[in-house]
Amino acid sequence: MSPPPLSARTAAIHLLFALTLALCIAPATQAHPPTTDPLPSWNEGPTKQAILSFMARVTKEGGPGFVPVEDRIAVFDNDGTLWPEKPVIQGAFLLDRLKTLAAKDPSLKQRQPYKAALEGDVAYFMEAGEKAVMELIAATQANQSDEQYEAEVRAFFKSARHPKLDRPYTELAYKPMTELLDYLRANGFQTWISSGGDIDFMRVIAQKMYGIPPDQVIGTHLKKKFLAKNNSQGLWIEPELDALNDKEGKPVGIDLHIGKRPVFAAGNVRSGGDVAMLEYSQGQKGPSFQLIINHDDAQREFAYQEKDNATLTAARANRWNVVSMKRDWKIIFCP
Amino acid sequence: MSPPPLSARTAAIHLLFALTLALCIAPATQAHPPTTDPLPSWNEGPTKQAILSFMARVTKEGGPGFVPVEDRIAVFDNDGTLWPEKPVIQGAFLLDRLKTLAAKDPSLKQRQPYKAALEGDVAYFMEAGEKAVMELIAATQANQSDEQYEAEVRAFFKSARHPKLDRPYTELAYKPMTELLDYLRANGFQTWISSGGDIDFMRVIAQKMYGIPPDQVIGTHLKKKFLAKNNSQGLWIEPELDALNDKEGKPVGIDLHIGKRPVFAAGNVRSGGDVAMLEYSQGQKGPSFQLIINHDDAQREFAYQEKDNATLTAARANRWNVVSMKRDWKIIFCP
Repeated sequence: MSPPPLSARTAAIHLLFALTLALCIAPATQAHPPTTDPLPSWNEGPTKQAILSFMARVTKEGGPGFVPVEDRIAVFDNDGTLWPEKPVIQGAFLLDRLKTLAAKDPSLKQRQPYKAALEGDVAYFMEAGEKAVMELIAATQANQSDEQYEAEVRAFFKSARHPKLDRPYTELAYKPMTELLDYLRANGFQTWISSGGDIDFMRVIAQKMYGIPPDQVIGTHLKKKFLAKNNSQGLWIEPELDALNDKEGKPVGIDLHIGKRPVFAAGNVRSGGDVAMLEYSQGQKGPSFQLIINHDDAQREFAYQEKDNATLTAARANRWNVVSMKRDWKIIFCP
Repeated sequence: MSPPPLSARTAAIHLLFALTLALCIAPATQAHPPTTDPLPSWNEGPTKQAILSFMARVTKEGGPGFVPVEDRIAVFDNDGTLWPEKPVIQGAFLLDRLKTLAAKDPSLKQRQPYKAALEGDVAYFMEAGEKAVMELIAATQANQSDEQYEAEVRAFFKSARHPKLDRPYTELAYKPMTELLDYLRANGFQTWISSGGDIDFMRVIAQKMYGIPPDQVIGTHLKKKFLAKNNSQGLWIEPELDALNDKEGKPVGIDLHIGKRPVFAAGNVRSGGDVAMLEYSQGQKGPSFQLIINHDDAQREFAYQEKDNATLTAARANRWNVVSMKRDWKIIFCP
């Protein structure tokens, strides 16, 4: 008996799978021979072309746009720029921790914001914004050593899965963006994260997922204090915000950690959280590149907009490059 | 007429000069062939031997003390560890700035701490400690853009000279320490500064003097705020302390910027400012190395102690390596 004929849709799915597999099993290299496409997951079009042209310009020694290697700084937002933010993955971790806490203290189930979190009311936190999320972070993350916290984050990433995409969060790096990170590094760029997320949360996965070491992660963080030798010797997390690395806080964090304006900056449409960072990058003397990811692909990822449309308005006014996930990306995740 | 015979003292001075010149004109290399002494300005003895043994141990692949390259983090205090602190050089910059301010507002000459600074009363600030110095820093450094501040620091370093050693501050890196920095980097270490000094002040000179890029400088800093595009677009320095990177603040700063405990940490005797940093380094799992510079060479640099002797007490208790500048260093500065 011969196998049943494939429907056109099934054939298309098979083809898509073969394509994404081919894109994902290629070895990650630090240097691309010039004949190889460094961004194979990007469709041809103005966005990809702008990236390639920019790179040719800043690496051309003696050219008018040449940028010395020591100034080749690239910064990336994380949630919605390098991995999904529906739900915000740190929110999922919080929920996990809250469940553990509520099992010990059931009164939490009646108090906000614990109640909303425990009921899986992600929209509550999307509405309440980063500051409200920080209150929860303090409640779930503080009053312990940073080593204990790191162990909890590691344990979370070992077992947790994305509720809709149904795979570990650590497999959800956007493939076109990890290619872009590789491409930048192959051309002498330092690649940094500057995110509203917690710095230590991201540090647990940044090296493995993005090739970004802990010292190149900038994020929101609570205060810590040093406990001397006779008192366990290490850092203790306090229930108090030290720095909120979002909106106008992003240039401040970048300056503190890097000490230079980034030549390349990437963020995304959702909260306007990356506008200041991209403005800061564009304000430097000499060439620079700004990239905004627009989530417009409900089929392969998510489609959503920004209430006041501030990010796309700024992108238009400042001629930033806007990625349409639907149009510009061949694949979004590795299969 | 033949030249007059040299006295023994003059001959010794000539010999010393020839020696230091030979040490300083050797090209700085990133890799040392095994037959070359990587620390030529260090006298043979237990301190130099301890450094060499430690390096052999942590770089021996498969050995019990092997440290992977990504964990090879070294941190150095700056004042009194990499360059002199008599006077504290940032204090000299402050004085310079205050003179400019006092020329515009003569009433400053009657008010403390301005009065003490303007009268060159360095001892006042040595006594009052880092926090008092920070008040002056805010008065002289804040309420301007960080680019303006950087320009002022650059201008200072172009013309200012050390009052006793009579040469530009930028020529006062301790030669044995720049050799040590080179040696660590040649063996895969990242070399960081973690100092009580102002982060942006140090960033102006760290690359050229020590080979340390801006993103590997950790220091005290004031708050900054981002001014958006329609308001000059950049960072504005506020007259408020954000972080004091001294004593227990040093492990906190290291964690924020690096995210790992340092394997190698170096500080000096004066204020106890480096004890917590060295404890933090020693508290990590696996091998680590702690170095304390003791200023005991009144002839070639300065000799001074610590009131409560806390640093040397901690060094003895924790078996840290103590450098006697007099005994361990062949030369201190390049001629």
